[in-house]
Amino acid sequence: MHKKLFIPGPVDVAEDVLQKMATPMIGHRTKEASKLQRDISEKLMKLFYTKNQIILSTTSGSGLMEAAIRCCTRRRAAVFAVGAFGKRWYEMAVANNVPVDLYGVNWGEATIPEQVDEVLSTGKYDLITVTHNETSTGIMNPISEIGKVVKRYPEVVFCVDAVSSAAGVKIEVDDWGIDICITSTQKALALPPGLAICTFSQKAYEAAREVKYRGFYLDLVRLYEYIQKKDYQYPSTPSLSHMFALNYQLDKIFEEGLENRFARHEEMAKYVRAWTKKYFELFPKEKYASNTLTNIKNTRGINIADLNKRLAMRGYMISNGYGKLKEQAFRIAHMGEITLPQIKELLVNIEDILGL
Amino acid sequence: MHKKLFIPGPVDVAEDVLQKMATPMIGHRTKEASKLQRDISEKLMKLFYTKNQIILSTTSGSGLMEAAIRCCTRRRAAVFAVGAFGKRWYEMAVANNVPVDLYGVNWGEATIPEQVDEVLSTGKYDLITVTHNETSTGIMNPISEIGKVVKRYPEVVFCVDAVSSAAGVKIEVDDWGIDICITSTQKALALPPGLAICTFSQKAYEAAREVKYRGFYLDLVRLYEYIQKKDYQYPSTPSLSHMFALNYQLDKIFEEGLENRFARHEEMAKYVRAWTKKYFELFPKEKYASNTLTNIKNTRGINIADLNKRLAMRGYMISNGYGKLKEQAFRIAHMGEITLPQIKELLVNIEDILGL
Repeated sequence: MHKKLFIPGPVDVAEDVLQKMATPMIGHRTKEASKLQRDISEKLMKLFYTKNQIILSTTSGSGLMEAAIRCCTRRRAAVFAVGAFGKRWYEMAVANNVPVDLYGVNWGEATIPEQVDEVLSTGKYDLITVTHNETSTGIMNPISEIGKVVKRYPEVVFCVDAVSSAAGVKIEVDDWGIDICITSTQKALALPPGLAICTFSQKAYEAAREVKYRGFYLDLVRLYEYIQKKDYQYPSTPSLSHMFALNYQLDKIFEEGLENRFARHEEMAKYVRAWTKKYFELFPKEKYASNTLTNIKNTRGINIADLNKRLAMRGYMISNGYGKLKEQAFRIAHMGEITLPQIKELLVNIEDILGL
Repeated sequence: MHKKLFIPGPVDVAEDVLQKMATPMIGHRTKEASKLQRDISEKLMKLFYTKNQIILSTTSGSGLMEAAIRCCTRRRAAVFAVGAFGKRWYEMAVANNVPVDLYGVNWGEATIPEQVDEVLSTGKYDLITVTHNETSTGIMNPISEIGKVVKRYPEVVFCVDAVSSAAGVKIEVDDWGIDICITSTQKALALPPGLAICTFSQKAYEAAREVKYRGFYLDLVRLYEYIQKKDYQYPSTPSLSHMFALNYQLDKIFEEGLENRFARHEEMAKYVRAWTKKYFELFPKEKYASNTLTNIKNTRGINIADLNKRLAMRGYMISNGYGKLKEQAFRIAHMGEITLPQIKELLVNIEDILGL
C-alpha cells in the first residue's frame, strides 16, 4: 500500500507529474534540450523573484550547498546553523579545506539579524550561509531581515538554503539580496528527488572566479559559463526526466498561483500549530515556526515509532524527531501538493490512535 | 516526432522501463528504500563480476570520475587519455589540486599495456585512470591486458571509466583488478541520465582514508561507510525514480542474459564496422574499435549536419564527430536496447540519403 507522505521529503508527487518522469529521451545537445532548459530557467526566475541566472545540478540539494561554499569563499565563511542541515554547510567547508567558522544556536531558536550583524562586523568573512527552513528543528529564519543586514557588507556573498521552503514560501531573491538561493525538487516543489536548483548572482560569479580550486562537477563558474555559452545546456548529461517533470510542474504551480500556493502552505501550518498547542508543544520558538513543516515536542511521552507504525497501517507516514530528537519530537510536513483537508484527516487519525 | 536515438547517450529507454520512472515516492529512510538499494547493489555486483561494494551517486558519470581521482590519489595520479573524456579526468584532478600527469595518444589510437607499464615503472604514481570506451574517438581500450600490468604495482589504485561500455561489454572487475569501475545509466544500461554507479574496492577505500580533503557530496569514504552502516541507504536523498527503473531494468538485462547481451552488442558493432569499411573508413584502429559505438571517418566529405537533418525527418538521430572532429567524422551508437534489425534499418536510410 502506498503511504501518503507527510515527511519533509521526498513528498508525494501528483500522478500527472509522475507521468512526465516517463517522457521518452531526447539528445541533450539538441535545440529541444536548450528550449526545455531555458523554459525551466525562466519559470524558476519567476518563482524566485529574481533576474539572476538559474543553475540546475543533477545532485541533491547538498551538491549545490557544497558548490556554493567551496566556490565562492575567498577568505573565510561564516556558517549560521540552527540545526543539522545548517551544520552540514560547516562540514562541507571543512571537507574542502575552506576556512570557516560555525555560529550556532540552541536547537529550536533562530538566526537573528543582530547575530549576523555582530559576526559580519568583525570584517573576517566574505561569505555567509543561512538556512531558510531547518527541517531538523522546524525553524524558519527571517531571511528578509537578515538580508537587510547583509546588504551593509557589500563584499559578502549571501547563500541561503531554501531546500525545504522554496515553492512553499515566498522568497524574494533580488529584494532580499540573496546571491545563491538553493533548493531541490523533492520538497515544496513536489517532484521526485534527483535535481537541485540555485539562483546565482553576478557577485557570486565574480567571487567564484577568484577561487582557484573549485572542483569540476560542482564548479559553479563552469556551470554558469557553459549555460551562457551553450544556450542553457549543461557540461554533463543532466537528468532530463526531472527536467520534463519540473517544466510541467512549474506550469501547474503558476496555475495555482504563487500567492495562493504560499497562502495554502501558511494555512496548513497555522492549523497544525494550533493543533500542536492543543495537545503538545511546539519545538521551535513560535515566532520562527516553519510554514512547511511542524516539529512537535513529545510532551506526552508517546512512543513515536509505534505511532508511525499505526499510521502506516492506515496509509500515512510522518517523521520522527531528527537525530538526537528522535524520540523527543515528531514532525509533520505540510508542503508540496498537500491540502488542508488532508492535514485534517491525518490529525484526526493521530488523535484517534493516541486517544486524544 | 520522437527520434530513434543512435547517439552515445542518452539512449532510448523501453516503454515499460520509462514507466518505472513514474513510480510513486517512498521515504528514503525506510526499510523499503534499503531493500531497493540492496537489491540494485547485488544485481550490479553480478553485472560487474565483482564482490566489491557498489556505490550509487545522483550525478552524471563525471561526478564519480571526479570523486575517484580526488578521493583516492595520495601522491600523484597518471591519467591515460585517448580522447576528450579521458582528458576530462586530467582536468578534474587539476581543478581539485590533485597532483597529476596526462599521458595521451593520437586520437584514434589506444592505451596499450606497454605504455602503462612504462609510466608505472617510474614509481611516481599511486593511482591511474583509463577509459574503457572513449566515445569521442570510438576506441575501446584493452582493460583486461592493462589490468595484468597494474597488478604488478600493488600500491596503484586502478580506476576505469566504463560509462559507455558497462552492460554492453563484459567487464570482469575482480579478475581484471579494477578498483573503481564507473558507469552511468544513460548508455548501455538503457535508462535515463541522472544516476552514476561505481564499484569500490577495499584497496580504494583504504587509499581514500589517507586523503584529507575529499569534499562532501562526492566523498567516496563517506558514501561507502554510510551504505555499510545504514543498510544501503545514502547520506543525501538519492534519485529514487532512477533506482526504481534501474532495479527493474537489471532484471530485464538478466532475462536477456549477460552473454546474450554482450553478443548482441558485438554483432551490431561488427555489422556497422563492415558497413563503414564498405563506404567510409573506421576512425579508430580496428583492433581497438568499440563494441558500443562506431566512429566513422568522413572520407567522402559529406555534409554531416545535413545528413542528420535528413535522418531526423525520417525519425532517426546519429551524432556528428566529437569536438574537433565535428565535420571530419560521424558516430553511430549501437548500445542499450538497440537491435541488429534497427541498425540495418538506420544504415539503409543513410545509404538512401547519401545515394550510396
